[in-house]
Amino acid sequence: MSLDSLTIAGKSYSSRLIVGTGKYKSVEETERAIDASGAEIITVALRRVDLSDKSGGSLMSLLTRRAHVGTAGEGKRWTLLPNTAGCYTADEAVRTLRLARELGVAELVKLEVIGDPKTLYPDNEQTLEAAKILVKEGFTVLPYCIDDPIVCKKLEDIGCAAVMPLAAPIGSGLGIRNPHNLSIILEHAKVPVIVDAGVGTASDAAIAMELGCDGVLMNTAIAHAKEPVLMAEAMKEAVQAGRKARLAGRMPRSRYANASSPLGGLIE
Amino acid sequence: MSLDSLTIAGKSYSSRLIVGTGKYKSVEETERAIDASGAEIITVALRRVDLSDKSGGSLMSLLTRRAHVGTAGEGKRWTLLPNTAGCYTADEAVRTLRLARELGVAELVKLEVIGDPKTLYPDNEQTLEAAKILVKEGFTVLPYCIDDPIVCKKLEDIGCAAVMPLAAPIGSGLGIRNPHNLSIILEHAKVPVIVDAGVGTASDAAIAMELGCDGVLMNTAIAHAKEPVLMAEAMKEAVQAGRKARLAGRMPRSRYANASSPLGGLIE
Amino acid sequence: MSLDSLTIAGKSYSSRLIVGTGKYKSVEETERAIDASGAEIITVALRRVDLSDKSGGSLMSLLTRRAHVGTAGEGKRWTLLPNTAGCYTADEAVRTLRLARELGVAELVKLEVIGDPKTLYPDNEQTLEAAKILVKEGFTVLPYCIDDPIVCKKLEDIGCAAVMPLAAPIGSGLGIRNPHNLSIILEHAKVPVIVDAGVGTASDAAIAMELGCDGVLMNTAIAHAKEPVLMAEAMKEAVQAGRKARLAGRMPRSRYANASSPLGGLIE
Amino acid sequence: MSLDSLTIAGKSYSSRLIVGTGKYKSVEETERAIDASGAEIITVALRRVDLSDKSGGSLMSLLTRRAHVGTAGEGKRWTLLPNTAGCYTADEAVRTLRLARELGVAELVKLEVIGDPKTLYPDNEQTLEAAKILVKEGFTVLPYCIDDPIVCKKLEDIGCAAVMPLAAPIGSGLGIRNPHNLSIILEHAKVPVIVDAGVGTASDAAIAMELGCDGVLMNTAIAHAKEPVLMAEAMKEAVQAGRKARLAGRMPRSRYANASSPLGGLIE
Repeated sequence: MSLDSLTIAGKSYSSRLIVGTGKYKSVEETERAIDASGAEIITVALRRVDLSDKSGGSLMSLLTRRAHVGTAGEGKRWTLLPNTAGCYTADEAVRTLRLARELGVAELVKLEVIGDPKTLYPDNEQTLEAAKILVKEGFTVLPYCIDDPIVCKKLEDIGCAAVMPLAAPIGSGLGIRNPHNLSIILEHAKVPVIVDAGVGTASDAAIAMELGCDGVLMNTAIAHAKEPVLMAEAMKEAVQAGRKARLAGRMPRSRYANASSPLGGLIE
Repeated sequence: MSLDSLTIAGKSYSSRLIVGTGKYKSVEETERAIDASGAEIITVALRRVDLSDKSGGSLMSLLTRRAHVGTAGEGKRWTLLPNTAGCYTADEAVRTLRLARELGVAELVKLEVIGDPKTLYPDNEQTLEAAKILVKEGFTVLPYCIDDPIVCKKLEDIGCAAVMPLAAPIGSGLGIRNPHNLSIILEHAKVPVIVDAGVGTASDAAIAMELGCDGVLMNTAIAHAKEPVLMAEAMKEAVQAGRKARLAGRMPRSRYANASSPLGGLIE
Repeated sequence: MSLDSLTIAGKSYSSRLIVGTGKYKSVEETERAIDASGAEIITVALRRVDLSDKSGGSLMSLLTRRAHVGTAGEGKRWTLLPNTAGCYTADEAVRTLRLARELGVAELVKLEVIGDPKTLYPDNEQTLEAAKILVKEGFTVLPYCIDDPIVCKKLEDIGCAAVMPLAAPIGSGLGIRNPHNLSIILEHAKVPVIVDAGVGTASDAAIAMELGCDGVLMNTAIAHAKEPVLMAEAMKEAVQAGRKARLAGRMPRSRYANASSPLGGLIE
Repeated sequence: MSLDSLTIAGKSYSSRLIVGTGKYKSVEETERAIDASGAEIITVALRRVDLSDKSGGSLMSLLTRRAHVGTAGEGKRWTLLPNTAGCYTADEAVRTLRLARELGVAELVKLEVIGDPKTLYPDNEQTLEAAKILVKEGFTVLPYCIDDPIVCKKLEDIGCAAVMPLAAPIGSGLGIRNPHNLSIILEHAKVPVIVDAGVGTASDAAIAMELGCDGVLMNTAIAHAKEPVLMAEAMKEAVQAGRKARLAGRMPRSRYANASSPLGGLIE
């Protein structure tokens, strides 16, 4: 069965998995892992990539070859999602994304304002401030934030196209630390909810989808697996499995099987 | 990438998912769900099926058409795994499986001795007793048991072809209640470890595989989903995703990203 | 052994448990429960109490009799901690606490700005804004907030006397939903960290203390227990037990006992 | 409030905490820790203690001075619970306890048959066999077992005076790995259920009591804390707190506070 698509800002994507482009051993591995993941949206840290270096083996050469901006060309299947990783203030993030716009790669933008270089937790106060400015300037903003239902609601009210609460600290691989907060965010959100950061393995991604999330964004879980390409495949399938399980409607939980259930045909 | 296969008693299976045949709305749904799951081994409760009823719409008519015994025929892809669900003593279970052998459907057998009709927890003492007899009689025994490392070791020493500890009570859908016990069982087992009972949704199956289990057996999680066929697909992919994640070698967990990690190319 | 005390803004308290005064069946029960809890700091919702009603059976009559402001009088052991429950903006909260100051009950204040009447999650953006104003005006501010390490750091930098992250939504009784966030807050905080909201039973309070928290604030867990006075006793002991366990230094965790440990004197 | 007592085989104990006597730095520390714990029942590994050495500083000299057998003497408050730690077969365990009876220290006995020297998981098959013999011989048997509801039921049916399922492997300090199994055991048991092994810190003991357990047995959690005497105090209070919380009847859990709850007097 082909799955329902993810729609962000009126545009549909068949994959619900968004992946990063950093931390790989080589650009060749990056490409193979992204292909194996089936991702259509690819995030790139504007402040960590040398945008002018399009030499062979550079990330920019790969993106130039495979990503499209605006409309997809021949084989250019990837939609770029530039992000502001490494920005510590609203001002830095806004300026970084204005630059992306000038470069023509700001169809969608991931807003990330970091609050602390050690833990990489987001600064939600600055994120809200930046989101207000960016939405006013017409950006399609996907903000990374802590799993705070009030912050998510505010970001939605500001006009963000999705909200991207964390599962756990960036790069921790700890999985969803607080499914309860996530489920409350999902209960109230009217825009897509995409779990961003903290996923460590396939089941983490499946759990996010089963909770009802619209997508998952990850980088380290794939790039720092021992075999990134195989893990990318695992993630692709886990996101699909989780989405299908959500749509299929899971069995109810109970303390144990009901003794009064009909025995005919009961097989375990 | 095609996955490594599951080998039980010297025979290989490409699917690591084993499914039951009970609790479905119809035999037609049973067939579609099993096909969607990709399972090759199909378990059937000998005491709950009318083996003599091969009329259209009966479970036996389906099994006769699709299952093979010994060698696979044209389109007969399923391997039957008769089980002793509903047996409360070693003696009952042994007699039931001797009957299966007479019927020619005892290539592999699932030994299940229930200790309590309310919770359906297994009676491991009786299971050990039955396993000793059955192995001596030449059966290839796959015993269902509690997640007890000592019981699993004894079953292995007796000569069982695999061990099948529960994740949670039969029909509860609670997922893996005790990953710690399971990981200790896996650390010591030299036969395949197949999680049997308690899986409720796709991520449960993925977690089992990530822990290192060799397979997962389930029935209610598929049959009692709102859409069994879609859930069967989800389970198929979840088992694959979990296996691939296991083989890919997950990233290490940490409290948060290491502040001293190289920033160049760091993208989340 | 007498335990180390909790110090907030230079003043020491022998109890690490702070309790609310609402939701009880009667003022008589309130008094007995608070006494049983051993709490010295008592929080009162300024917007939900009729401050002018000091008739017998009123909360104000109890507080007038038992609480002190500034210096403790004969038998007046309780320190009042007025809170701004029910405030939805920084402005409302600030005005409410200015009123408390005029009434002479603002030695310590609990700042609470709610973001949503349904979930009662705090609005951290508004809380930060109010905290800045209140600290400038000389209040000793104890802010309630989500378990966000960056917000906690900002509140500390503003000059708050403690930070009070939630364990779970107010009134949910779910216990500590995210011990990981709490442990990161504790790792970095230089002011007391008091878990506020979400505690449901005694072990929740013990866990908070074992993680290293300096105190626990609760209301519903005591007031809505079937027997509030007995639960208050349980909470008193659980906070002490958790604190002592923290100070005692727990045994290391391991997969199982080390097989090579000396057997002489090994008793379990 | 004085707590309800623990009754085993018709005899009441005011403390619900049972402690071991091994792994301490000295006999002097053992005595102080046991006193701090408030325990009345003290378990001793018959096979690891030199019963003939009653010299000063020996464990036997302490037990001779403080423990009573049968009736309590002046200051001899401890009831000895000899255990069969280190026994690997029913036969070894039975012989060890017969010896204890000859020595006059077998008022209560803890039956422990280990299945594996590495993990120290119990061998429940052998435990059942030994329990049958010991009960027939008139012993008051407290068996250590895995958290298996069927094994617990069988031990009860055999005539054991209590059942003592593990929380986690001996010496692991991992706390209750499977509260679900424990709650099912508690739902069905008609004899006291005492959690034995695996407790690591105070909240673990509180959780066991909140689940409804009748007591907790521990050794390493106290003896291997950095400060055993302080941890013993913590454990004493945690067991009391957990028991009181159980009796007090905890507040119901909910996703968040009900928005429709009366606001008057609502304070958090």
